[in-house]
Amino acid sequence: MAKKVVTFGEIMLRLAPEGYYRFVQADKLGATYGGGEANVAVSLANYGFDAAFVTKLPKHEIGQAAINSLRKFGVDTSHIARGGDRVGIYFLEKGASQRPSKVIYDRAGSSIYTAAKEDFDWKAIFDGAEWFHFTGITPALNDGVAAICLDACKAAKEAGVKISCDLNYRNKLWSKEKAGQVMGELCKYVDVCIANEEDAADVFGIHAANTDVTAGEVNREGYKDVARQLADRFGFEKVAITLRESISANDNNWSAMLFDGTDYYFSKKYKMHIVDRVGGGDSFGGGLIAAVLGGYDPQASIEFAVAASCLKHSIEGDYNMVSMDEVAKLAGGDASGRVQR
Amino acid sequence: MAKKVVTFGEIMLRLAPEGYYRFVQADKLGATYGGGEANVAVSLANYGFDAAFVTKLPKHEIGQAAINSLRKFGVDTSHIARGGDRVGIYFLEKGASQRPSKVIYDRAGSSIYTAAKEDFDWKAIFDGAEWFHFTGITPALNDGVAAICLDACKAAKEAGVKISCDLNYRNKLWSKEKAGQVMGELCKYVDVCIANEEDAADVFGIHAANTDVTAGEVNREGYKDVARQLADRFGFEKVAITLRESISANDNNWSAMLFDGTDYYFSKKYKMHIVDRVGGGDSFGGGLIAAVLGGYDPQASIEFAVAASCLKHSIEGDYNMVSMDEVAKLAGGDASGRVQR
Amino acid sequence: MAKKVVTFGEIMLRLAPEGYYRFVQADKLGATYGGGEANVAVSLANYGFDAAFVTKLPKHEIGQAAINSLRKFGVDTSHIARGGDRVGIYFLEKGASQRPSKVIYDRAGSSIYTAAKEDFDWKAIFDGAEWFHFTGITPALNDGVAAICLDACKAAKEAGVKISCDLNYRNKLWSKEKAGQVMGELCKYVDVCIANEEDAADVFGIHAANTDVTAGEVNREGYKDVARQLADRFGFEKVAITLRESISANDNNWSAMLFDGTDYYFSKKYKMHIVDRVGGGDSFGGGLIAAVLGGYDPQASIEFAVAASCLKHSIEGDYNMVSMDEVAKLAGGDASGRVQR
Amino acid sequence: MAKKVVTFGEIMLRLAPEGYYRFVQADKLGATYGGGEANVAVSLANYGFDAAFVTKLPKHEIGQAAINSLRKFGVDTSHIARGGDRVGIYFLEKGASQRPSKVIYDRAGSSIYTAAKEDFDWKAIFDGAEWFHFTGITPALNDGVAAICLDACKAAKEAGVKISCDLNYRNKLWSKEKAGQVMGELCKYVDVCIANEEDAADVFGIHAANTDVTAGEVNREGYKDVARQLADRFGFEKVAITLRESISANDNNWSAMLFDGTDYYFSKKYKMHIVDRVGGGDSFGGGLIAAVLGGYDPQASIEFAVAASCLKHSIEGDYNMVSMDEVAKLAGGDASGRVQR
Amino acid sequence: MAKKVVTFGEIMLRLAPEGYYRFVQADKLGATYGGGEANVAVSLANYGFDAAFVTKLPKHEIGQAAINSLRKFGVDTSHIARGGDRVGIYFLEKGASQRPSKVIYDRAGSSIYTAAKEDFDWKAIFDGAEWFHFTGITPALNDGVAAICLDACKAAKEAGVKISCDLNYRNKLWSKEKAGQVMGELCKYVDVCIANEEDAADVFGIHAANTDVTAGEVNREGYKDVARQLADRFGFEKVAITLRESISANDNNWSAMLFDGTDYYFSKKYKMHIVDRVGGGDSFGGGLIAAVLGGYDPQASIEFAVAASCLKHSIEGDYNMVSMDEVAKLAGGDASGRVQR
Amino acid sequence: MAKKVVTFGEIMLRLAPEGYYRFVQADKLGATYGGGEANVAVSLANYGFDAAFVTKLPKHEIGQAAINSLRKFGVDTSHIARGGDRVGIYFLEKGASQRPSKVIYDRAGSSIYTAAKEDFDWKAIFDGAEWFHFTGITPALNDGVAAICLDACKAAKEAGVKISCDLNYRNKLWSKEKAGQVMGELCKYVDVCIANEEDAADVFGIHAANTDVTAGEVNREGYKDVARQLADRFGFEKVAITLRESISANDNNWSAMLFDGTDYYFSKKYKMHIVDRVGGGDSFGGGLIAAVLGGYDPQASIEFAVAASCLKHSIEGDYNMVSMDEVAKLAGGDASGRVQR
Repeated sequence: MAKKVVTFGEIMLRLAPEGYYRFVQADKLGATYGGGEANVAVSLANYGFDAAFVTKLPKHEIGQAAINSLRKFGVDTSHIARGGDRVGIYFLEKGASQRPSKVIYDRAGSSIYTAAKEDFDWKAIFDGAEWFHFTGITPALNDGVAAICLDACKAAKEAGVKISCDLNYRNKLWSKEKAGQVMGELCKYVDVCIANEEDAADVFGIHAANTDVTAGEVNREGYKDVARQLADRFGFEKVAITLRESISANDNNWSAMLFDGTDYYFSKKYKMHIVDRVGGGDSFGGGLIAAVLGGYDPQASIEFAVAASCLKHSIEGDYNMVSMDEVAKLAGGDASGRVQR
Repeated sequence: MAKKVVTFGEIMLRLAPEGYYRFVQADKLGATYGGGEANVAVSLANYGFDAAFVTKLPKHEIGQAAINSLRKFGVDTSHIARGGDRVGIYFLEKGASQRPSKVIYDRAGSSIYTAAKEDFDWKAIFDGAEWFHFTGITPALNDGVAAICLDACKAAKEAGVKISCDLNYRNKLWSKEKAGQVMGELCKYVDVCIANEEDAADVFGIHAANTDVTAGEVNREGYKDVARQLADRFGFEKVAITLRESISANDNNWSAMLFDGTDYYFSKKYKMHIVDRVGGGDSFGGGLIAAVLGGYDPQASIEFAVAASCLKHSIEGDYNMVSMDEVAKLAGGDASGRVQR
Repeated sequence: MAKKVVTFGEIMLRLAPEGYYRFVQADKLGATYGGGEANVAVSLANYGFDAAFVTKLPKHEIGQAAINSLRKFGVDTSHIARGGDRVGIYFLEKGASQRPSKVIYDRAGSSIYTAAKEDFDWKAIFDGAEWFHFTGITPALNDGVAAICLDACKAAKEAGVKISCDLNYRNKLWSKEKAGQVMGELCKYVDVCIANEEDAADVFGIHAANTDVTAGEVNREGYKDVARQLADRFGFEKVAITLRESISANDNNWSAMLFDGTDYYFSKKYKMHIVDRVGGGDSFGGGLIAAVLGGYDPQASIEFAVAASCLKHSIEGDYNMVSMDEVAKLAGGDASGRVQR
Repeated sequence: MAKKVVTFGEIMLRLAPEGYYRFVQADKLGATYGGGEANVAVSLANYGFDAAFVTKLPKHEIGQAAINSLRKFGVDTSHIARGGDRVGIYFLEKGASQRPSKVIYDRAGSSIYTAAKEDFDWKAIFDGAEWFHFTGITPALNDGVAAICLDACKAAKEAGVKISCDLNYRNKLWSKEKAGQVMGELCKYVDVCIANEEDAADVFGIHAANTDVTAGEVNREGYKDVARQLADRFGFEKVAITLRESISANDNNWSAMLFDGTDYYFSKKYKMHIVDRVGGGDSFGGGLIAAVLGGYDPQASIEFAVAASCLKHSIEGDYNMVSMDEVAKLAGGDASGRVQR
Repeated sequence: MAKKVVTFGEIMLRLAPEGYYRFVQADKLGATYGGGEANVAVSLANYGFDAAFVTKLPKHEIGQAAINSLRKFGVDTSHIARGGDRVGIYFLEKGASQRPSKVIYDRAGSSIYTAAKEDFDWKAIFDGAEWFHFTGITPALNDGVAAICLDACKAAKEAGVKISCDLNYRNKLWSKEKAGQVMGELCKYVDVCIANEEDAADVFGIHAANTDVTAGEVNREGYKDVARQLADRFGFEKVAITLRESISANDNNWSAMLFDGTDYYFSKKYKMHIVDRVGGGDSFGGGLIAAVLGGYDPQASIEFAVAASCLKHSIEGDYNMVSMDEVAKLAGGDASGRVQR
Repeated sequence: MAKKVVTFGEIMLRLAPEGYYRFVQADKLGATYGGGEANVAVSLANYGFDAAFVTKLPKHEIGQAAINSLRKFGVDTSHIARGGDRVGIYFLEKGASQRPSKVIYDRAGSSIYTAAKEDFDWKAIFDGAEWFHFTGITPALNDGVAAICLDACKAAKEAGVKISCDLNYRNKLWSKEKAGQVMGELCKYVDVCIANEEDAADVFGIHAANTDVTAGEVNREGYKDVARQLADRFGFEKVAITLRESISANDNNWSAMLFDGTDYYFSKKYKMHIVDRVGGGDSFGGGLIAAVLGGYDPQASIEFAVAASCLKHSIEGDYNMVSMDEVAKLAGGDASGRVQR
């Protein structure tokens, strides 16, 4: 029987011009759905886990369409509260070459912003669950949602559920000070912390000590130092740090490091030609949870997580639509892209 | 030199599934722009008038795209205030046969909601103008916008500018009581009042007196009575009432009546096979203003306005993209739809 | 808690040129999924029932996409057997005016054709269920599937589950003789029989006795006679007959009759402008099951079923994507298609 | 072995906005090919005839694409001269309801305009042929093309090939006087003349004598009189007249009459819901030639020709893509549009 | 007069999601046609040869559409047998970056599988022909097709027609043993053998002797050894081997070698950014046949063939749509991709 | 208040297959508008300048659509003459990898070809203007247009307006001799000359003296020599030369040099992954004019111009749709393409 994972956060309507069109050229917008924790839930459902996503969505058809987008992949949506007026929106313009991608958020006032504690029965939600995941975006929405997030963490801990958190700092949503304060409280409950190169500094003011940051090469010692500081401060079991090198909007290098409290495990680095970069970090989280729940050793775990997110960059939309087998094959070394007949 | 018309209100991003797809089926949404007063401005620009549209829009690319959609047709957008966070949105699902079209509004908190009186220099805006138009939707947004609307009316009157108003009652935006109170104040400044079958009753509680409402045939006496009551109460120079008979989502009959304070002028009735019904009423307003400013007599005016809006129903999007010549040809009696080579 | 309904049959990949393009013009094919019993399951899931669809599908991505198309609407797909090589296909060219729609089947050898009795644990499948539905297409596939269908009927009866069957005769799949023999055996277990104007004659040789068939008007006495004969021969609790008048590929009239063993209930007749006619009959079945399970009286049941299928004709694809409320509104008499804001 | 038919004229690139979009809305244009005589050739190839189309086209890729569009349907393109600079273009905006379709021609200077007599070896072209068809558009292009057309007629007559001509008067291309003079010369060679309601008057000044033209009903006597006058003046074996009643851009009635020198044969009348009206007349010509070459009697011929063109109105693009069987089925009376499985 | 080439095999309907969408995301599938030998026929028709493709296809519209796809490019389809029930299908998901392309075959039971010897009159087919081409896929379909293929080879030899064969081993269709046995028999008739890096080993167990296979560089000596062994065993006049280096799904290097029984000719190597990789090998075959029939010397022949297939990788669909001039220009050294005005 | 810039030339309808489709595959063509001077006007309008574009366009809807495409971006179209019959067209097939892009012009006889001197009141047009820009394409159209261009230069000079010219030699439009003669005359009025690597040689026979042209590296001394010769011969204030290295149709390197009469300023070089290369040179011109009018120093000017055109290569269509801020950010060194949230 599949292991149960719960994620909590906002799912938004993503509106994106086709191909490389700029916003001003678009008379059609691709309409899909996504959000940090929803993306992780879909990843895990595609790997065969029993993944439940928790949020609040309006009762109207746009809210329903968001739910259907999750059900399509087998995500359990039965704990989603219904109510409020709107689905948060983000507009995405895909960049190319030297032109960066652009995201315009229009999420204020969405249903999850207006959620009340009573909307979620965490005890029931965590019944049978083994893992809970959220990101730093969720508590950043507003104080109410942050309080619900804290509720969830406490309930998870009580139920013996492991907790992972992707720091995911967004400066449009809150200040570094506020983030540090709220996330500091939440991180006390977290077992596995995920961050990118800048999150630790932005949220917690943690910088690599005594390292020479040389442009153009991965600063291995710096990342190790940051991971250890994070683990030391919050008692994380594991800290994973993703490393993105942005050559251009089309070409990125991608790798990661996992610290298990003792040792540091660096993954292979992939040179990616990007189809869709959004959700790349979330697919890393989904891969890492799958690997850890699957009992992979640390090196295998970080390789799986990075391979999973490498594949995500080749897929349109926020959701990572790959199977365990596909990830395993890439993690196992076959990156040639040869046709499979 | 072209006569100048000013309209004021909200322009929204319209998101609509292609063809007859339901919301839940759509992974692409047509993205156009529209709104009662913006639609009237585009109509008039297409007829060759110097049409200015006034609103407030955010500085980001979605706000800019709304502006560009107007500039494309030659609408003067130089008086649009920039600021605030979001463009109002409405989702439109096109109905077919017995299945009705469906509109979901997501407009709360848009830039125009947050507009301040200082955003608009009405004296400058009305410089050289001959006509000002707004609809009952604009003051319904909130009290601040209603106050700005009142400012505009006063400034228009001082500048000797004619004012038209389409009552356009929307029960999602305000109650009948509130509408009656606010619109009652505004209508004191209005010269030409436009309404559909139900607006007069909804907003002002004006019902046809002593008439037999026989289902299935146009109740001519009732409309005449309502128009006179409206004119009597507010001193309107002209009252125009549109008459829609909805056979199905695809087929509507469409006609109208104009009261000039003395006589009642009924238009031809068109049996329309609908391409896009939204903006149908606005295109009537645009046609009527064009006809009156063009010096048409009352019968010619109402025929022009109805022909203009009849053509709108054959056009995708909120905007009516027809020329004076095209409307005149239909108003003149050629409704055969024969190919023009 | 929602009532559980089970349906069993084939789900196919439907490949259809866009709009009114002919096959020979199409370099793109709309790819959706559908099949008599799958369509009924989706209808019921959309009405809020706990609908399970049972079939066999290959393990590859096309099989998975068929499953995802069902999960999207909340259909329980956990009892679908996985194996075999292919998903059945049908090509659909939409007709217009005097040009008929055209269906080309390419279903032979699909996974369900190769299903074994062991693929389905009917006892588990019917656990908690209240209704079982299948159509005459399923046993027509081949003898193996017919035998599985008989298994299912027996298991349903043992579990106290009501059984409905839509006769749905397809002459491409089997002869009238063979159909009569196999369906005769299965119908012994059926409680509610659904048929169109010709099925009873094609499958069972049942014709209306002593009636004048007058072209151009609904032959009410004939339908009553056929329904009674069907009920008499097989002991059906209820017999529903749908009546389609095909004016053109675009315009059909649609109504139905329900016989409850005692009385005959005729529905309203709808003049439909067709968006997509395929799945029209299935949506009638879905509506009828919903109404009966919902405890509607016979007149209300037949009105609901016909209104449901009327709406289906306005929706692209095999699946009927309407809510209880939408059907109830139309059945209640509002067929004007007016915009709902 | 298939009978050989030759047609001669211009084939143009047709650029049309999708659906009912106006030109000003289109950022995409459907790109197909068509022209009076090319359309007839495709009709006949689809019926199984050996149809050759003769024209001149540039050597570049747009010219080649025009040829490929014909080869796709099996039209013999081996006699098409290559040279000149451009493919003629026509822009088509599809009308709806009261809004007419609009055609903008951009054909001047196309390769066929610059053709020389030496470009075509008519003796070789007519080798083995039984029929030659052209329309009044071809000689209208310019004097050079008219002279080539006359060459072709003479060569056809010498080779014992039957000649049909669709008068097809286009006032954008030439005056009535010029048309009368040139067509008068060409018609001396013509055996079968095709015209619509107005062509005979426009080109030859032939009006119905002594008839009451009653609006709203087909003026049978008038058509008979015109056909006889045409036959008398030019010695045509057969005269066919098509009768279009334009209710709206979406709805037309369509029928025709054939005069065989002795008797008058009127076809059924079809009420058509139009998908694409362009090429409707050409598909009538193609149907008529097929019927006559197939040895149909006059009534069967006119029914076949009208049914063929009725079906064309349900098909996108200039080309009629229907088989003999499909036309025969409609001509035989099945106009119900029921799904064919 | 153009030289005549005949190819024999299966043509399939290719169904592919747009862009880089995964199967599970696609609600639209690009519908084109292709197959090893059909692709070669189209290449040659585009080069100006008289190319005939022989196969069996059903009489219905999908079969006809496959034929039309070939006629469009001028391929002679007059020898295609009509009958059977289905067109073989393959589903293609285009890979990107580290994610490989995926092909799902659904070809069993297609019309060509059911072909009988009597369906093809090889003597008539080869009348006037100079070349016959087939691939190892065709005899792999089943024993019946293999026998027909042998018939064709014998008839070609008798008619003095050169024969080429692309080994093209597909492990989904047959075992290596079976392939070796059947292909061994057929290769006795073959003059020109085409293979990729692995075919010789898979089909005939021929491996490079005494060579160091160093990863990452082209193993020139090994390819020479394999080519000589192939020529020695079967008496081939020429052996061509294509060399693909797969950097990622987007980026491949491509080159080839030709052995003419005496000397070895290596082509330039192209670094390709891939638009569509399917049909790449077939376009090499088409280029090689064109070059040999055109009398090119060995070095020019292999350069032409590789340039032809390099261009194919930049073109959507199975068919290579390039002219002799375009290939010659690239083979001549202009690979800059500069705009040609 | 925004500075006013005037440009004069032809605007064409651009018809391009989607993605990488070849012309022969396209049944849909993207329909946008562009032309050297129109593109510059749009660039400048997007930067906030008051940009007016002058040309002649037909009165019909295609002409109007060209105007609307400019108005959308705020370009002043009030000086465009209306008349003539056609909008010039160019067909664009986008190349990929080793396959070059292909342009087919169909512009002869367009409205601007038929323009008369009286169509333009240059005195009024230049009222308040600070800059006039044209390219070598405009006088190349025909002698009439060349004469109008000379008129414009004289009027600009009289009005104290700076003049820039992009030599832009097109051998399809005129010979080198003719170009040299006409451009020689016009260049007497020009202040800022823009050219690519080959224009100076093609138009004026100016070659780099005494330099070793080493393939594969930028020949800095040669460019400096050419720029000085140009400045010496015509007295240009500034000469800008763009340097394109074409690796493939997808990948180009792009840089430029500015000579201000004294010193030579070389820009950064960008490695671009191309979305749409057409209009790349025009966007350089637009950037340069903006920088010079904005008072940038020479190094900042050439960096701005190259960054602007680098961004253009990432945007679909002829028009460069970027803001001052976006260009400044890239010119300032951020070419990482990281997502902007």
